[in-house]
Amino acid sequence: MDGRDLKEFIEKVKNGTIGIDEAVARLRDLPYEDIGFAKIDHHRALRKGFPEVIYAAGKKEEEIVKIIGRMLEKEENILVTKLTDDKARIIKKSFSQGEYFPNSKVFTLEVRQEEKRGKGTILVITAGTSDIPVAEEAAITARFMGNEVETLFDVGVSGIHRILANRDALMEASVIVVAAGMEGALPSIVGGLVDKPVIAVPTSTGYGASFGGLSALLGMLNSCASGVTVVNIDNGFGAGYAASLINRL
Amino acid sequence: MDGRDLKEFIEKVKNGTIGIDEAVARLRDLPYEDIGFAKIDHHRALRKGFPEVIYAAGKKEEEIVKIIGRMLEKEENILVTKLTDDKARIIKKSFSQGEYFPNSKVFTLEVRQEEKRGKGTILVITAGTSDIPVAEEAAITARFMGNEVETLFDVGVSGIHRILANRDALMEASVIVVAAGMEGALPSIVGGLVDKPVIAVPTSTGYGASFGGLSALLGMLNSCASGVTVVNIDNGFGAGYAASLINRL
Amino acid sequence: MDGRDLKEFIEKVKNGTIGIDEAVARLRDLPYEDIGFAKIDHHRALRKGFPEVIYAAGKKEEEIVKIIGRMLEKEENILVTKLTDDKARIIKKSFSQGEYFPNSKVFTLEVRQEEKRGKGTILVITAGTSDIPVAEEAAITARFMGNEVETLFDVGVSGIHRILANRDALMEASVIVVAAGMEGALPSIVGGLVDKPVIAVPTSTGYGASFGGLSALLGMLNSCASGVTVVNIDNGFGAGYAASLINRL
Amino acid sequence: MDGRDLKEFIEKVKNGTIGIDEAVARLRDLPYEDIGFAKIDHHRALRKGFPEVIYAAGKKEEEIVKIIGRMLEKEENILVTKLTDDKARIIKKSFSQGEYFPNSKVFTLEVRQEEKRGKGTILVITAGTSDIPVAEEAAITARFMGNEVETLFDVGVSGIHRILANRDALMEASVIVVAAGMEGALPSIVGGLVDKPVIAVPTSTGYGASFGGLSALLGMLNSCASGVTVVNIDNGFGAGYAASLINRL
Amino acid sequence: MDGRDLKEFIEKVKNGTIGIDEAVARLRDLPYEDIGFAKIDHHRALRKGFPEVIYAAGKKEEEIVKIIGRMLEKEENILVTKLTDDKARIIKKSFSQGEYFPNSKVFTLEVRQEEKRGKGTILVITAGTSDIPVAEEAAITARFMGNEVETLFDVGVSGIHRILANRDALMEASVIVVAAGMEGALPSIVGGLVDKPVIAVPTSTGYGASFGGLSALLGMLNSCASGVTVVNIDNGFGAGYAASLINRL
Amino acid sequence: MDGRDLKEFIEKVKNGTIGIDEAVARLRDLPYEDIGFAKIDHHRALRKGFPEVIYAAGKKEEEIVKIIGRMLEKEENILVTKLTDDKARIIKKSFSQGEYFPNSKVFTLEVRQEEKRGKGTILVITAGTSDIPVAEEAAITARFMGNEVETLFDVGVSGIHRILANRDALMEASVIVVAAGMEGALPSIVGGLVDKPVIAVPTSTGYGASFGGLSALLGMLNSCASGVTVVNIDNGFGAGYAASLINRL
Amino acid sequence: MDGRDLKEFIEKVKNGTIGIDEAVARLRDLPYEDIGFAKIDHHRALRKGFPEVIYAAGKKEEEIVKIIGRMLEKEENILVTKLTDDKARIIKKSFSQGEYFPNSKVFTLEVRQEEKRGKGTILVITAGTSDIPVAEEAAITARFMGNEVETLFDVGVSGIHRILANRDALMEASVIVVAAGMEGALPSIVGGLVDKPVIAVPTSTGYGASFGGLSALLGMLNSCASGVTVVNIDNGFGAGYAASLINRL
Amino acid sequence: MDGRDLKEFIEKVKNGTIGIDEAVARLRDLPYEDIGFAKIDHHRALRKGFPEVIYAAGKKEEEIVKIIGRMLEKEENILVTKLTDDKARIIKKSFSQGEYFPNSKVFTLEVRQEEKRGKGTILVITAGTSDIPVAEEAAITARFMGNEVETLFDVGVSGIHRILANRDALMEASVIVVAAGMEGALPSIVGGLVDKPVIAVPTSTGYGASFGGLSALLGMLNSCASGVTVVNIDNGFGAGYAASLINRL
Repeated sequence: MDGRDLKEFIEKVKNGTIGIDEAVARLRDLPYEDIGFAKIDHHRALRKGFPEVIYAAGKKEEEIVKIIGRMLEKEENILVTKLTDDKARIIKKSFSQGEYFPNSKVFTLEVRQEEKRGKGTILVITAGTSDIPVAEEAAITARFMGNEVETLFDVGVSGIHRILANRDALMEASVIVVAAGMEGALPSIVGGLVDKPVIAVPTSTGYGASFGGLSALLGMLNSCASGVTVVNIDNGFGAGYAASLINRL
Repeated sequence: MDGRDLKEFIEKVKNGTIGIDEAVARLRDLPYEDIGFAKIDHHRALRKGFPEVIYAAGKKEEEIVKIIGRMLEKEENILVTKLTDDKARIIKKSFSQGEYFPNSKVFTLEVRQEEKRGKGTILVITAGTSDIPVAEEAAITARFMGNEVETLFDVGVSGIHRILANRDALMEASVIVVAAGMEGALPSIVGGLVDKPVIAVPTSTGYGASFGGLSALLGMLNSCASGVTVVNIDNGFGAGYAASLINRL
Repeated sequence: MDGRDLKEFIEKVKNGTIGIDEAVARLRDLPYEDIGFAKIDHHRALRKGFPEVIYAAGKKEEEIVKIIGRMLEKEENILVTKLTDDKARIIKKSFSQGEYFPNSKVFTLEVRQEEKRGKGTILVITAGTSDIPVAEEAAITARFMGNEVETLFDVGVSGIHRILANRDALMEASVIVVAAGMEGALPSIVGGLVDKPVIAVPTSTGYGASFGGLSALLGMLNSCASGVTVVNIDNGFGAGYAASLINRL
Repeated sequence: MDGRDLKEFIEKVKNGTIGIDEAVARLRDLPYEDIGFAKIDHHRALRKGFPEVIYAAGKKEEEIVKIIGRMLEKEENILVTKLTDDKARIIKKSFSQGEYFPNSKVFTLEVRQEEKRGKGTILVITAGTSDIPVAEEAAITARFMGNEVETLFDVGVSGIHRILANRDALMEASVIVVAAGMEGALPSIVGGLVDKPVIAVPTSTGYGASFGGLSALLGMLNSCASGVTVVNIDNGFGAGYAASLINRL
Repeated sequence: MDGRDLKEFIEKVKNGTIGIDEAVARLRDLPYEDIGFAKIDHHRALRKGFPEVIYAAGKKEEEIVKIIGRMLEKEENILVTKLTDDKARIIKKSFSQGEYFPNSKVFTLEVRQEEKRGKGTILVITAGTSDIPVAEEAAITARFMGNEVETLFDVGVSGIHRILANRDALMEASVIVVAAGMEGALPSIVGGLVDKPVIAVPTSTGYGASFGGLSALLGMLNSCASGVTVVNIDNGFGAGYAASLINRL
Repeated sequence: MDGRDLKEFIEKVKNGTIGIDEAVARLRDLPYEDIGFAKIDHHRALRKGFPEVIYAAGKKEEEIVKIIGRMLEKEENILVTKLTDDKARIIKKSFSQGEYFPNSKVFTLEVRQEEKRGKGTILVITAGTSDIPVAEEAAITARFMGNEVETLFDVGVSGIHRILANRDALMEASVIVVAAGMEGALPSIVGGLVDKPVIAVPTSTGYGASFGGLSALLGMLNSCASGVTVVNIDNGFGAGYAASLINRL
Repeated sequence: MDGRDLKEFIEKVKNGTIGIDEAVARLRDLPYEDIGFAKIDHHRALRKGFPEVIYAAGKKEEEIVKIIGRMLEKEENILVTKLTDDKARIIKKSFSQGEYFPNSKVFTLEVRQEEKRGKGTILVITAGTSDIPVAEEAAITARFMGNEVETLFDVGVSGIHRILANRDALMEASVIVVAAGMEGALPSIVGGLVDKPVIAVPTSTGYGASFGGLSALLGMLNSCASGVTVVNIDNGFGAGYAASLINRL
Repeated sequence: MDGRDLKEFIEKVKNGTIGIDEAVARLRDLPYEDIGFAKIDHHRALRKGFPEVIYAAGKKEEEIVKIIGRMLEKEENILVTKLTDDKARIIKKSFSQGEYFPNSKVFTLEVRQEEKRGKGTILVITAGTSDIPVAEEAAITARFMGNEVETLFDVGVSGIHRILANRDALMEASVIVVAAGMEGALPSIVGGLVDKPVIAVPTSTGYGASFGGLSALLGMLNSCASGVTVVNIDNGFGAGYAASLINRL
């Protein structure tokens, strides 16, 4: 039951085509899927400012192609994450105008200019060079969502001067995303230097007792600096998305 | 907006007190909490056949007393789980007609006869004597929900003849709850002997590498027997509840 | 010692060919394997209504072919799970009339019509599209065991309206299987909406701190909704089997 | 070397008391602790808007009393977290004008009016009643930092209508803190309903396979909803603090 | 159906009181619990040479007293493990002739002389003094089961000469039990020195990353020395029992 | 200092070429490596009755070929474990008279008849067919070490009659090795049926929450049956070796 | 066979009382325990420069008193670690001249002046005030072993200026011990600032996902700074000991 | 602001081009990156005695080539770790004068003679042959940093005489690195024999419950021998580096 149906229904109530008891019964059972969810859906479109993001892992190429196709019909911008090189090759055949970032496994296709809704700058930092792919996923996501994004790579804690030397960049950002593997200590340092929200992304960089990013994850969760929140291991997209929401406030 | 409000609203639509556009607007925003959720709540009451169960852990005595009080006003039967002896003493002061089971930390107070909705018999089994408190929680829950419940304790796998000797009891049950700690192997044996749903409850019985029930939990999840499903460690209530739902089909 | 042997033995006792002491001795040692287990075996065939399921992982192609061959001689329907594409190709060469489901790695070959023993409908739900292979394993198993099965895919909790919009399907099912990875929250939602047994299947969908399905598994075990039980990670077969047992009650 | 020392030094450079080479040498070695850190400290005071928070765990009563005393001399507002009842009794003897919240183990003493720096409303939600202490820690922290805070307790996912019924409150908040134990699914639901930053706080509520909050933590990290970030188990303070930083943007 | 019943039955078959068909039927259904399990029980008594051991954890005092009472009626020797001091005090009131070992939490009461069935000597070794309680449990168990037991305490690997100095004792033993906490390395050393079965018992001795014995357990399971097998953390009883079975061969 | 050196030294002491003080000094510093360790080495050869076993994992083909070559020079029998098919092909080129078992990844080459030192029969059991490779490693090892070995495969607990039907084989064995994956319950059943040492080998068979054999390992360590000891996951060799040591007593 | 025995033996060889063959035989079997280990023991005394340290956990008061007594007879200095307050009270009764440090649970009693063997200064740092007890254990140990020790507390990474302000102290130390809980990031910072060995001690400070020090431990093991090595959680003694060995080089 | 800039600035202060207030302001904001960090950098070069080590994992070939190129311009020696064979082939094309060690995945290129700064000998030991690659990484690193390095391979604890036979080598070393997998017991033995710092490197050698080196890691952290510190699993580089720092004291 969308808006038009609803109006028609009310008119019928008014003119007596539908009796009061029947109207009560139908409204009582009013499936929220018909109103509520269409509404939620519209609301969703309104509030998010961009459509569903396609998480490619576990989806087949043909499925992804089909989803992109349907979204393009609605003139929606496309963001695909965790897209392997093999799958990307196939997607590119159908949508050659899109751009694939092999480092971060992201595919984008923008059919309309995304409005700049972010107010400040989102700064994306990495501890080491191996964390760059995850950081790139965050940066692309945030740019896609209409934000100014700056990046600052390889400023990890084993050479503390590297991050201190970039204190200005830290101070000027409105939200900071920090990707780090191994001991995951960089977000604590950054969180201690600034009064801005810091989103920490543990990466699976490392070996041995890094246990696929668990070490960095635990380090970040136990950060002794205030204002640091954490997303899943290697979840650059999630960090970029959350940073975007914050940057719109 | 409950049923009466709704009727009143529709009458106003009909007699023009509320214009069509305003009606559409109000219905579009119709908080599903007012209709939908009141409905869900009734539905809830209908389908569950008994009210909310009170999980006492993390609640203070005065909170529990207040909740029981409000439920008794609606003539609802009371089931409280994970209630420590200390808390039970205080609850009993206010509701002396209730019964407290110190083994399983359950408190019940039945103000009206629960209708027997379970069709078959629910059999609750334990591997050892230390698993009895958890099994008792399952048995009390299932009885409270209107089921015939049989129990069979201390028939663990180190003396396989004990469970085999009770094959008849196994065959006659419609649902079987098996509580076991340590290696948690009994559900696999039972699941291999019968063609009935088996709900396995790992218990925190054991020491060392039992890791508080983790060993039994993993054993049950990996059961090579079909038809076995698992609930949380020491969750006798959950097993009794799920068995009750199954027994009503 | 089967039935005929037993009769012969008793006749010999009666006519004195076997003395009382010898008879006592032989009966005392009566291997239950000979009577008891043949009996259990028959019982097994009776109660399960369908033969052994073949778990293909860790078995060689020639072993699987041999087992299928022997089962077909007894006119038993065939269900093989966790069968890789490579093995399936070889199996299909011998049993081209069978059907292979590459998504869920299941192979079926039905030589006789399975009697419809399930009373209600089993509903199989997934949170995301990546959970479909596991759900398909559950659905095929349940259908193979003689049940009506409905499916409802991609209704996860990040868009809660998707599952709410399908409340009717939930209400009409007699048992619900819910496959979900990542945070594994969908079974809790479903369990809170219905009064039917819900079997939760954690899937290994996800990355980082999903730890191969551990996150979803723990989430499901800790479900705050009652009536939810859990099977092993990616164990669609087990969920379908348990749902079938419940649906027969 | 504070501001005055610095001025004096420069005057000496200007009037030749300190030669150029010596000046270069002294500045080259200028301990950043003297300028830099005093500066950082001032900066810290500026940006944080409130002084150091005292984490009481692992500190002795006399240490806490001493720290509070020194901070009061500087007319700083006091926030102490994780303060046990026993320690609180002793602290209260010295600072009877302070307020102790036994539920959340927080002690506050405000000697000057905190300026309202938060722009929107921070909404603090709990899944169950057992999560309230952690939520209260978040709410007190956010209020202490100059924010409007609303709370909404016991709206967990086992009765999904409870959170849906409060959609308006969700929509009106600028930042949402969600405390949940057990399966920790509530932040995913909330994150799917709103376009605001959601800070998830896993709580140690639960038993068995909740493993002291690990289950909720993993569930939240794997949230399939975008915009959700996570803090340490039971870290209400951290969530309130991060929400405050976000609310100031 | 015990031996006498069986004889009576056969006599009735012989004299025709029970017809052949009825006899076949009764034997076919012969509940193995009646013959088979009684038989297993006798067998059990025969083979074990000593009765059930009472695992006191999770049992109440009155339950333990009752079990001991019933066993004493059958003139069985009593071995109770994991018996806390509090429970022991109560047990001693009823059975003052028994002996309680507060170190190892074992209670024994021997009403008849246990026959020496062990052929060689069982040597029980500890790495440190903190491992002695677990070792004592093993030693008491093995002596109770009729073995010669020698002990050798505090010969851990940080002073490798201590174990080398006792090479003779190692060589003369037929089975060796090694209890060790922390890194659990002693069984590997012992296993490399002798050609006898070595049963390793990890103990929960240690702190920090010993994780309650997990470290020692993993170390022992990964022993690079051949001939080492492992029991549960702190399971002195299990080690003493297994050593006894081996020593009887 | 070997035997000849030692004699020469003593003769020099006797004839005064070496003075008493010098002799004391030299003996005091007598490197145990020269006497002690040669002695240990001889002892080793004596007691083991067969030479070093070659663990192929992490060794290169040429290293393995070299080690085998040197051992063959001393007419020692060869046992290589964890040898991949690729490496085996290369080894076979050099030692074509050896035998490679691709299932269990074992290579043997017997140049002299191994004396039968085992007294009873070692029985090797598996729960499922997927556990056979590990069991075969155990069986080959035990045969190689001079034991009679029987095998009994696929008698897991989901069909408890299968193991009960083979009770005779269990009773006749002197030592039993049980390989099982998934929930690892079979050793508990076997341990409850016999009074013989049972060596449990967890296998990495399974998926999901079997966590590479962890589930089976924990199950076996927590076995409620006495007389069960455990070796590392997939360590068929270790089980066969330990069984051999026990069988020689 | 000690020195005197050895001399006597050699004299007998020389004068023919013991024949050459007999001498060879006796020397061949010369138990290294008699010579070798006495020697190792002396060596031990020589190299350690101080006697055995008494690890009090798991030892009874009377055992500790006895060990101290015997060591005092040999005029050895006493260091007891992990000594609870209760035990300390009893120890102090017997050895009132000793000193007990209730913070770090260390007891020392020096009967002779420890020679200053450490060459440089050992610097002991903590991240927070809660880490001080562990640091104090390290500092007392290092002082007891004859080192100059400096301490620097509460310089954790959330205020990076605190550690930078103390760069001089870092530069002047020859070995640095860093105790930190929570995310354990301080050793990485320190290791990046200095070219000295850094010994990291994770502490069990923290809550939630600190998992009793596991988070700090993993962080330190994954340190991206070179020159950092790690000891067990809360092992201040081990860190102080290792630092002492390094400082003697 | 480097040295020259600084001088210029001071001259301007002196001659009045820059006023006192402006000077104070500029110095107060003096970015430590300009002075402080250039200084740290020089300091870094001074103290380390060799440039940055290149950790190749997660870096692309072209990145590594570029970094090496820039370092060679400054005549710095090159050390690359964790370099796969594939990457090494490409690196060798550009820098054919370098040496690649395929066992330990290390690449070195020395353009100037490294000064011998290590005072004693660093001894690198392995428990088994499979630990050699990790040990080789440690040895190459230590040699590269100007140390004498000895190696002693395959002296693990299953044949304790092997390590005892090499006691002299142990005694002569100034620092000992011990690489061991499986139970990781060797460092404890070595630590009990010597009074030198022992750096333990757990290796991922092993299978089953070795859990990728976790078993060895925990064993080493719990070492009952004093003076043992630990680095990450397979971190031969870190051990060699830390040993070098110690050896320079």
